[in-house]
Amino acid sequence: MEPNSTAALARLAAVQNHLTIQPCFHRHAIHNDKPTGPADLARERANASFKVDDMTEVIFRGKENVDALNLAFQMIQRDPDLRMRAGHHHDLTRAEDREQTMRQIARVVELRKQIKDPRLAQALFTAMAYYSESFSMRIYVHEMLFRQAVTLFGSPEQQDQWLDDINNWRVIGCFAMTELGTSSNLRGLETTSTYDRATNEWVIHSPTLTSTKWWIGMSGETATHTVAICQTIVDGENHGINWFIVPLRDGKTGKLKPGVTAGDIGHKAGRQGLDNGWIQFTSVRIPRLNMMMKWASMSPEGEFTPSPNPVLSYATLIPERFTLLGGSQVILSQTLTIAVRYGAVRRQGNHDEQILDYQTHYTSLMPGVAFIYALNIVDHELMTKWNEVAGYAQTDAGAFMREIPDQHGVSAGFKGAMSWYATEVLENCRRACGGHAYSSYNAIAGLIGDYGVMTTGGGDNVVLMQQSARYLITTLKWAQEGQEVLGSVSYLNDYKKVLSTPKSTIQDARDLLQHEFVIDVLTWACAKKATELGAILAEAGKANFDQAWNTNQTELVRLADVHSWRYFLILYQQGINRHKHTPVYGMLRKMGQLLSTLVLQRHLDLFLEEGYFNGSHAKMVRQLFLDQCKDLRKDAIPLIDAWAIPDFILKAPIGKYDGNIYPAYFGTVTAAQQSFDAPAYWHKHAHPMLNGKKSCKC
Amino acid sequence: MEPNSTAALARLAAVQNHLTIQPCFHRHAIHNDKPTGPADLARERANASFKVDDMTEVIFRGKENVDALNLAFQMIQRDPDLRMRAGHHHDLTRAEDREQTMRQIARVVELRKQIKDPRLAQALFTAMAYYSESFSMRIYVHEMLFRQAVTLFGSPEQQDQWLDDINNWRVIGCFAMTELGTSSNLRGLETTSTYDRATNEWVIHSPTLTSTKWWIGMSGETATHTVAICQTIVDGENHGINWFIVPLRDGKTGKLKPGVTAGDIGHKAGRQGLDNGWIQFTSVRIPRLNMMMKWASMSPEGEFTPSPNPVLSYATLIPERFTLLGGSQVILSQTLTIAVRYGAVRRQGNHDEQILDYQTHYTSLMPGVAFIYALNIVDHELMTKWNEVAGYAQTDAGAFMREIPDQHGVSAGFKGAMSWYATEVLENCRRACGGHAYSSYNAIAGLIGDYGVMTTGGGDNVVLMQQSARYLITTLKWAQEGQEVLGSVSYLNDYKKVLSTPKSTIQDARDLLQHEFVIDVLTWACAKKATELGAILAEAGKANFDQAWNTNQTELVRLADVHSWRYFLILYQQGINRHKHTPVYGMLRKMGQLLSTLVLQRHLDLFLEEGYFNGSHAKMVRQLFLDQCKDLRKDAIPLIDAWAIPDFILKAPIGKYDGNIYPAYFGTVTAAQQSFDAPAYWHKHAHPMLNGKKSCKC
Repeated sequence: MEPNSTAALARLAAVQNHLTIQPCFHRHAIHNDKPTGPADLARERANASFKVDDMTEVIFRGKENVDALNLAFQMIQRDPDLRMRAGHHHDLTRAEDREQTMRQIARVVELRKQIKDPRLAQALFTAMAYYSESFSMRIYVHEMLFRQAVTLFGSPEQQDQWLDDINNWRVIGCFAMTELGTSSNLRGLETTSTYDRATNEWVIHSPTLTSTKWWIGMSGETATHTVAICQTIVDGENHGINWFIVPLRDGKTGKLKPGVTAGDIGHKAGRQGLDNGWIQFTSVRIPRLNMMMKWASMSPEGEFTPSPNPVLSYATLIPERFTLLGGSQVILSQTLTIAVRYGAVRRQGNHDEQILDYQTHYTSLMPGVAFIYALNIVDHELMTKWNEVAGYAQTDAGAFMREIPDQHGVSAGFKGAMSWYATEVLENCRRACGGHAYSSYNAIAGLIGDYGVMTTGGGDNVVLMQQSARYLITTLKWAQEGQEVLGSVSYLNDYKKVLSTPKSTIQDARDLLQHEFVIDVLTWACAKKATELGAILAEAGKANFDQAWNTNQTELVRLADVHSWRYFLILYQQGINRHKHTPVYGMLRKMGQLLSTLVLQRHLDLFLEEGYFNGSHAKMVRQLFLDQCKDLRKDAIPLIDAWAIPDFILKAPIGKYDGNIYPAYFGTVTAAQQSFDAPAYWHKHAHPMLNGKKSCKC
Repeated sequence: MEPNSTAALARLAAVQNHLTIQPCFHRHAIHNDKPTGPADLARERANASFKVDDMTEVIFRGKENVDALNLAFQMIQRDPDLRMRAGHHHDLTRAEDREQTMRQIARVVELRKQIKDPRLAQALFTAMAYYSESFSMRIYVHEMLFRQAVTLFGSPEQQDQWLDDINNWRVIGCFAMTELGTSSNLRGLETTSTYDRATNEWVIHSPTLTSTKWWIGMSGETATHTVAICQTIVDGENHGINWFIVPLRDGKTGKLKPGVTAGDIGHKAGRQGLDNGWIQFTSVRIPRLNMMMKWASMSPEGEFTPSPNPVLSYATLIPERFTLLGGSQVILSQTLTIAVRYGAVRRQGNHDEQILDYQTHYTSLMPGVAFIYALNIVDHELMTKWNEVAGYAQTDAGAFMREIPDQHGVSAGFKGAMSWYATEVLENCRRACGGHAYSSYNAIAGLIGDYGVMTTGGGDNVVLMQQSARYLITTLKWAQEGQEVLGSVSYLNDYKKVLSTPKSTIQDARDLLQHEFVIDVLTWACAKKATELGAILAEAGKANFDQAWNTNQTELVRLADVHSWRYFLILYQQGINRHKHTPVYGMLRKMGQLLSTLVLQRHLDLFLEEGYFNGSHAKMVRQLFLDQCKDLRKDAIPLIDAWAIPDFILKAPIGKYDGNIYPAYFGTVTAAQQSFDAPAYWHKHAHPMLNGKKSCKC
């Protein structure tokens, strides 16, 4: 070899020592058939800084609920109508998945009649929601979307007429809002309901292809009824959108009603057990009383009274968004359980480290863990408030309407901001499991597929974030005019005072551990962005408002994001204050502190750009974030154990509780394998090619 | 109503005007059965600032290639062995998908024997790669991974022995590297190849469950041979990893060879047509000559000569990563074609705008469009260089080994950085299509599933980014010691000079349009980060190196990211310089400028934190980014049209060329619907529930 090459070789040797990871042939001691995973998990559990049971009780609000949930899991695991009977969930065909989901629903409806304890009934639903997202969505469509439409928009008489059948599934209801050509812009919907004075009926009609109701859950195969949002036409005049109950299928035969065409949407990115469908109405006649009449009404004499405010027609979207958000816990807690356990069991690298000990690994997972705790706590705060507001709908219309705008603003911003972040968490989990997340049998791919609809469904996130921003810009204007604004935007009352401190008063990293301090920083950011953007929009005036809005759309969305996270952190602190007496308060607080730093870090460029933070503040935030993640990583396993999700629910061998993952994973894969013989197509397509002549001149 | 409620009502009315989008009932004129999409696309096309055909010729490197590609698309569309015969791709079962993919391969192998024009043969492969990711991956495993292992690691005699059979698919080869318990850490692999002096054979063995070869493409059902990477044991001593050819299945019967157990991995997040599998070897004997002997060798007399450098065993991973990266174009150009066309056709909002005109919309899609152009150009630069280097493997071992480190560093960093960004682009596309991307029939969900493996497969991105960072830290050390470093890291030679300018010299936004100016900014960032991190690691010393590395892992990954993008932009400029004479050079340059701003914007916090940029510089970058996206949006349709992907390849009605999307989408969904009758399970599970007694006391 020439000298040149020798030099090159020496150099190469030096480089490769850095390029590649050190040799470690004797890892057989670790990666043999005596697995290290169980010992790793046992050690992590022994070192927990809190008692897992204490935390589980906080998550599920008391020991009685935890006991009920465990009993419900046992019921599912034993009941052949509830559990998978054979094979693996991800090997089901769409038709099998649909059937299984309906079988589960029928069984749960039956069981509920026997279960006297409402706590157990609730636990059974919760447990099933963990077991199957399609089950949970089908229940959600009927019991949440359809039922709430009746309770929020139906008169007392209409509620009497429908609720018993709804509660007992003697009807199956769906919720027909979105159309093929229109989703976010509800007022642009094309389906019409035209009053026929001759018969006192409404005539429901889909005038165009784009007016086809689209994506409607359970309309594909099973719903017997729908509430449909329609343009209300009386005497040729459009009175805006209202809700109508339209029968779709005969309850005995399942056959479509005359004038109704409904079909299945077919294959989707997830939720194959849910029959999303489409509906076209061709002059379908329904009785006058099938219009939901709490707000708008049509009298027997044919006098139409419009809703006092059209926004009331959308009120059902508020709890929908809160529920979607709360429901995120179900998917994300499973995904994180799998990823965190795998991270603690999997060993790789120079010293065969647990991969969860790598900085990039724990920083990608631990904020997600804290986020799920926060979702749990905040969800409770949101629903408590919403139930109070929804109560007003029956008792105090004025109070109801006073509360709706802030509820709407919060639900829009939270659904957008939190489901975007949730999507990041899911992707982090997927990547944290390496190739093994690509196997359907490790559940993560399916959970991501199921969740995918969240960022665009139930209101597209970009649209919702703009609604939140618009609410902020409007309430800021009121505050600037001297009116007091309330709820999530109350800080705007003091916008001047807030802005009078153009630089952070931060002294050292300990300041960033104070809830109030971080909220002040975020308050400044929101007030700053809101006043700047408000001024630009005001200057543009009415004529150029839309154009100015669009030119600043990116920043308006960002404003809504910071604002939503700020309020999310406030509600979290408010929520954990209710658990101050519990032994896990310290841990809950710690997770809130990490999330606070996460939010600051995500918007560092904003603080730096405006000179509110300087470079060393920014470094402080980044270092604190790393330290907090490292600290929380110590309790990673106890924190995910506390969610108490049984292995059969997880359906992911690499996320098994006992940490002995490889035999389980291999067993799952080989159980799914049909045969070790050559596939049928071998003889048709591979054999002729493999046995072709060596030098074919044909 | 009380006065209080009246005030609340007035307030509510004001708020809701801001919360919701303005009424627009008369949009019937737009959303009726006379679609606006075709006119919208026609107008966008008429306003193109360049000729689409000119651009297509640049992308495919000449008119002859474009013609060949179009002919190949026609061949596919007409040939019942190549195209889908009935139904929709996403309604295929796994078994059907596998069979179809193998049928396509057999047909292409047959067709190639007839096709005299190598250009057309290449075009047929390219066109099929667009049509089916599973097809492309199966071909890739055999013709790239398996074949390159023979050409890079096999002696001339071994190449003579195998290549003709490989080229004619008289064997089907796979590439057995990853094991169940070990992926990234190749040197920790457990499979052994032990030399038996008695018989002059190698004995291939999987000692443990975790040593099972895992994820191996085509090992599940079809491969007749594999190259397997094994620990090489001679006389009880481990000589490190080498490659061995092991027969897996009988070429006539498809039956597994004695001692080989191989099975299918089953359901995955994507690529169902590819039979990923697992392999266990139980004392499988292969001839001495089945060890690949270009670098290491075993003489007939039983004398083992190790490879001059173990890194050579991984050399095949370099072109693998380049190819994966280049292959990203196939998936991303389809996804972007669909999302951009839909964005131009879909109308929504106050004035029924084309949604692509919303700022958040075009800023989320246009950088992705520019990125695909850059991938195309850079891929060409990378492969040209790699082919030169791979040529040295046959002719000049010294030159080969001199070039390998930089090739390795570049391939690792590029694969990591670019596939992470590509994943973002895909998610942006998905969200840009709203709920319609959730339908499998609009292709995006499937394309995302197919692509998912990219960030963890072919080397986990986090590991690769660290390899890139380690290469940087090492070469910086050499530069600091006065050695000249070459290739992608040559800027480190001048690190002192670079760092002598601690603040940007930016005057106005026009500076940011200069390629050299942006590269200087990024050079500063890389030099700054690299020297800081290098100093920390040097101070830690050998004993604490790993710990210090992990404490700074996040920033090391970031360093690799900035470094990779910097070099990516350089290669893009180098590549488009070859097209300076073409009429589309201006557009290519413009896209490079946008990508430059994108990179700066993604790291604004870094520049601000270090005081290299001040707040107004940051605002300048953000504003420029918005302006550039808006400008490029004008050519959005021509830019994606230039990729020339036919509708039947896209398989997405909402991305149709003619813009008449709704009838096509509805038609696809209804064609997939099996029946409008009640499903079989209706009678079993829905009917009894719906017809339950009103007041059951049982």
